[in-house]
Amino acid sequence: MNNYKFEDLSVGMSESFKVTITQEMLDSFKGITGDINPLHNDEAFAISKGHPGRVAYGMLTASFLSTLAGVYIPGERSLIQQVETKFSSPVYIGDELTVKGEIVELVESVQRLELKVTITNQSGKKVLRGKMQILVV
Amino acid sequence: MNNYKFEDLSVGMSESFKVTITQEMLDSFKGITGDINPLHNDEAFAISKGHPGRVAYGMLTASFLSTLAGVYIPGERSLIQQVETKFSSPVYIGDELTVKGEIVELVESVQRLELKVTITNQSGKKVLRGKMQILVV
Repeated sequence: MNNYKFEDLSVGMSESFKVTITQEMLDSFKGITGDINPLHNDEAFAISKGHPGRVAYGMLTASFLSTLAGVYIPGERSLIQQVETKFSSPVYIGDELTVKGEIVELVESVQRLELKVTITNQSGKKVLRGKMQILVV
Repeated sequence: MNNYKFEDLSVGMSESFKVTITQEMLDSFKGITGDINPLHNDEAFAISKGHPGRVAYGMLTASFLSTLAGVYIPGERSLIQQVETKFSSPVYIGDELTVKGEIVELVESVQRLELKVTITNQSGKKVLRGKMQILVV
């Protein structure tokens, strides 16, 4: 786990990691949230809607932004204040996602960073774009 | 699970549900995301930072927006396009959250609704505010 202090950070710094989406992740996310929507849970339903299989919850994909901030950038001192995400393409079981954050702004007076975030699948397609405001505490 | 069609919806309609945050939810969220940040996992660390115990992941609290859209409003036909959230107060194990969404805009040409969302704890304190753009498909 990284542990950047505010003074260690600079605009343009970035961190990334890869994660593969599994059926167990979808089932576990359903267990936490109670989101029983069939698009994410019923393969036949998802196929009837034109997908190759169960679609990953958008908010499951967004969950990896927690790891991006809390483990990678800035790491231990992270306190997420604000998140904006747009879901641009569906994510499926077996997809290998690259989760990336790049610092685009640093506000010293409140020790806050703004991270531009992108999540890309194994074909290079962006599945999520967004930004996060994170305090370094 | 609700199953509103676009024509069933109107500005001002709202849905809400309650959920109690458990230690198992935090552990399960860590299992999915790999976010090992000690604020959420190490009680002694969280107490040393001035909290009464482990702090729930912000993105775990935000995960219930998946349920709000996919089960409650609009329910089965939900396809989340965009989410904005601000985390205004910490959430702890044992907190009972009320997750509420109210339709503030309907765009018929693209069958999209905008939901104003608030998550409030058992003391009536807002822990999350935000908005979601959701397609009704």
